[in-house]
Amino acid sequence: MTPPRGMRDFLPAEKARREHALRIIRRAYATYGFDEIETPVVEDYDRLHAGIGGDNEKLAFNVLKRGLTADDLSRAAEDGDVSSLADLGLRYDLTVPLARFYASHRSDLPPVFRSIQIAPVWRAERPQKGRYRQFVQCDIDIIGEAGPLAEIELITATTAALRELGLTGTRVRINDRRLLIGMLDAFGFAADDHAQVLITIDKLDKVGAAGVIAELRERGAPSVAVDALERHLAATGDEGASRGFDEDSIRAALPVGVDPAAIATLAEIGLAADQVNTSGAGGIETSGSSVVFDPYLVRGMGYYTGPIFEIEHPDLGYSLGGGGRYDGMIGRFLGQDVPAAGFSIGFERIVDLIDLADDAEESAAVLVYDRDVEPGRLVALKAELAGEGRRIRLEQRVKNLKGLLDRVGAAGFSEFAFVTSETTGVAQLEWRPLA
Amino acid sequence: MTPPRGMRDFLPAEKARREHALRIIRRAYATYGFDEIETPVVEDYDRLHAGIGGDNEKLAFNVLKRGLTADDLSRAAEDGDVSSLADLGLRYDLTVPLARFYASHRSDLPPVFRSIQIAPVWRAERPQKGRYRQFVQCDIDIIGEAGPLAEIELITATTAALRELGLTGTRVRINDRRLLIGMLDAFGFAADDHAQVLITIDKLDKVGAAGVIAELRERGAPSVAVDALERHLAATGDEGASRGFDEDSIRAALPVGVDPAAIATLAEIGLAADQVNTSGAGGIETSGSSVVFDPYLVRGMGYYTGPIFEIEHPDLGYSLGGGGRYDGMIGRFLGQDVPAAGFSIGFERIVDLIDLADDAEESAAVLVYDRDVEPGRLVALKAELAGEGRRIRLEQRVKNLKGLLDRVGAAGFSEFAFVTSETTGVAQLEWRPLA
Repeated sequence: MTPPRGMRDFLPAEKARREHALRIIRRAYATYGFDEIETPVVEDYDRLHAGIGGDNEKLAFNVLKRGLTADDLSRAAEDGDVSSLADLGLRYDLTVPLARFYASHRSDLPPVFRSIQIAPVWRAERPQKGRYRQFVQCDIDIIGEAGPLAEIELITATTAALRELGLTGTRVRINDRRLLIGMLDAFGFAADDHAQVLITIDKLDKVGAAGVIAELRERGAPSVAVDALERHLAATGDEGASRGFDEDSIRAALPVGVDPAAIATLAEIGLAADQVNTSGAGGIETSGSSVVFDPYLVRGMGYYTGPIFEIEHPDLGYSLGGGGRYDGMIGRFLGQDVPAAGFSIGFERIVDLIDLADDAEESAAVLVYDRDVEPGRLVALKAELAGEGRRIRLEQRVKNLKGLLDRVGAAGFSEFAFVTSETTGVAQLEWRPLA
Repeated sequence: MTPPRGMRDFLPAEKARREHALRIIRRAYATYGFDEIETPVVEDYDRLHAGIGGDNEKLAFNVLKRGLTADDLSRAAEDGDVSSLADLGLRYDLTVPLARFYASHRSDLPPVFRSIQIAPVWRAERPQKGRYRQFVQCDIDIIGEAGPLAEIELITATTAALRELGLTGTRVRINDRRLLIGMLDAFGFAADDHAQVLITIDKLDKVGAAGVIAELRERGAPSVAVDALERHLAATGDEGASRGFDEDSIRAALPVGVDPAAIATLAEIGLAADQVNTSGAGGIETSGSSVVFDPYLVRGMGYYTGPIFEIEHPDLGYSLGGGGRYDGMIGRFLGQDVPAAGFSIGFERIVDLIDLADDAEESAAVLVYDRDVEPGRLVALKAELAGEGRRIRLEQRVKNLKGLLDRVGAAGFSEFAFVTSETTGVAQLEWRPLA
């Protein structure tokens, strides 16, 4: 008797931790001027399968139409078309719903709209350790701002939220899709092969420069291009994430001729990061190295059009979140180009990392009552204490009193009192501490 | 471009209201000693269709199996069996998931487990005004307590939560399934007809005594039984909700011979309500009439086994929530009888009613910036102010400044300051009030 495969129940202690972390994230994002919205967990099938969800579209849980007849089934069987049986699906990300939301409500939103979405998504992936079929994403997006102000606001708000959660010393790696493409062009990779080459380069952290080069050669990429990439990797280092971030440093890390406008944008973000650091405001970590240029940062999704970024903690072997500019996508359902950029953090990874001080239980107390106490009197006592803002739990006295007290102590209650049939008011209660 | 049929998006103002209301409800329930849990939004198909969800089972949104082949479809078409194509479904209530959760985790839960579930459910009903296909339910349940203490705790916590939301003067009507059954027996309705007769009696509020009697006669119920019911309705009044609540009053409102044990239980709840009232603790409203016995209260679901209750506000024509004891159900998946009672409030109805003081925006401010201000400087100013806990939004200065200021004023921001290329620090900002 378990939850559906790859999904989880949350018992009280874990649920309390999660809600606490979500409150902190919500507050941080709101402080940075973002507004939370909510969409239904299902979207129309056609929207979820419009080609903007990338590989995730294949992982959607789809919802059966209601009232299907045997004829509908026969027709679907003949056509071999399962999708004709579904009209809805569970969202697999928060970006497709945001694009749909923006198309629905644009006229009610400010010209620059800063959204928060904190909500579960579903993917029918093979379950494995740390990967679930239902998980919470925390996304912030800025729609309607074409300049690097958007990226800087996103990075500042995200690092602030992580800092509020107690995760300091995070590092943001930045690159730009246009620079990646320019670099591949300069090395001599054909435009048609870029997507595949990027998938390989994306493994740099895992397999190292030698691994990337070997895989490209195996795949039969043109030698001259692979050689150029190999030389460049050797010159810039496969770490690639500790260099300076002004326009000259960026240019120096790239082949000649790569898109100067993209370099300027990225340098502007670098300069802004410096300014926020220097101001001591701490929106971005004050150690100078915490926003760094990484010419080999790829990010998986195909829809990015400009700056891309990923946030990590130096002590961890994985990313805590990422994002970038995706100007083509939010307007897709509107049929218009709308500038947009977003930053998503992986709530499930983060909530397992953090050590949250419990802020709710200081005055939680237990009334241990004898079975012969009248229920009304008991609840009257409880209501009076709860009215004072104390968290109150009733527990019937049992033979194994120590076991009972240990259990409620472990559940975060800090004191208890006995209630007998002689207890008539709160004043008579004698409070004792719980271990 | 809208959300799926019968479902809603929430824009920032409405989302903020909802989150605020949910925070209040969570805090009130926690204060009264309940613990929040969470289950996945989908459950295995077989659990959702095990017969314990009543009519709601038919309203489930079911999820297509992944990887279905043309053969699977042909077989389903031949068998006329759509359900073979689904392995999961969206939950239509929070009770079936709670029964499954309890079966999964019983050994990790205290002997008396007081749960909070605040979460959306989905029903494929015909959409209509005020009725949605995705809506939030707030349920509290007490599992493992067989006595009326459970009902009293549920009623006290629920009225407290509503009071915290500003809904005072609510009235709880109570009855007991066993008394209803006993009454129908005494009138002479056959046991097989009870379910149908109860559906008709449930319309008393809408159609009145005469309407109920007419419908029963039309349906061909035995005259002698209908006559007895008619006499009883005339004697007790079709309002039925303003009488006393001690054992004698309950007995006087019922035909002779109705289950004395059930009468005693109900009287115990009545006495307890009085005690909580008299204590002035206010868990239950202090006006003496706010917990009343109503011998014609039915409640729809078939799974209730003891006391049932509904909460309403005298000014409103509809119920705000309800619940009761359902001892047979939580243990269904365990194959054991486990005592349980629950109280569910209708969040969607309540959130539309309440007038929430906005507690978040007091120090929300807008920086109106010229286009030539460097992004980094701008975000540094913002981060410094946000670091002081102020909610800060950036807005680019536009020609229609008044329109801009009206918009952010309406969004809850209280002051603004201009930022020009000469502004170098927070100290230079001149704050002006927003209307």
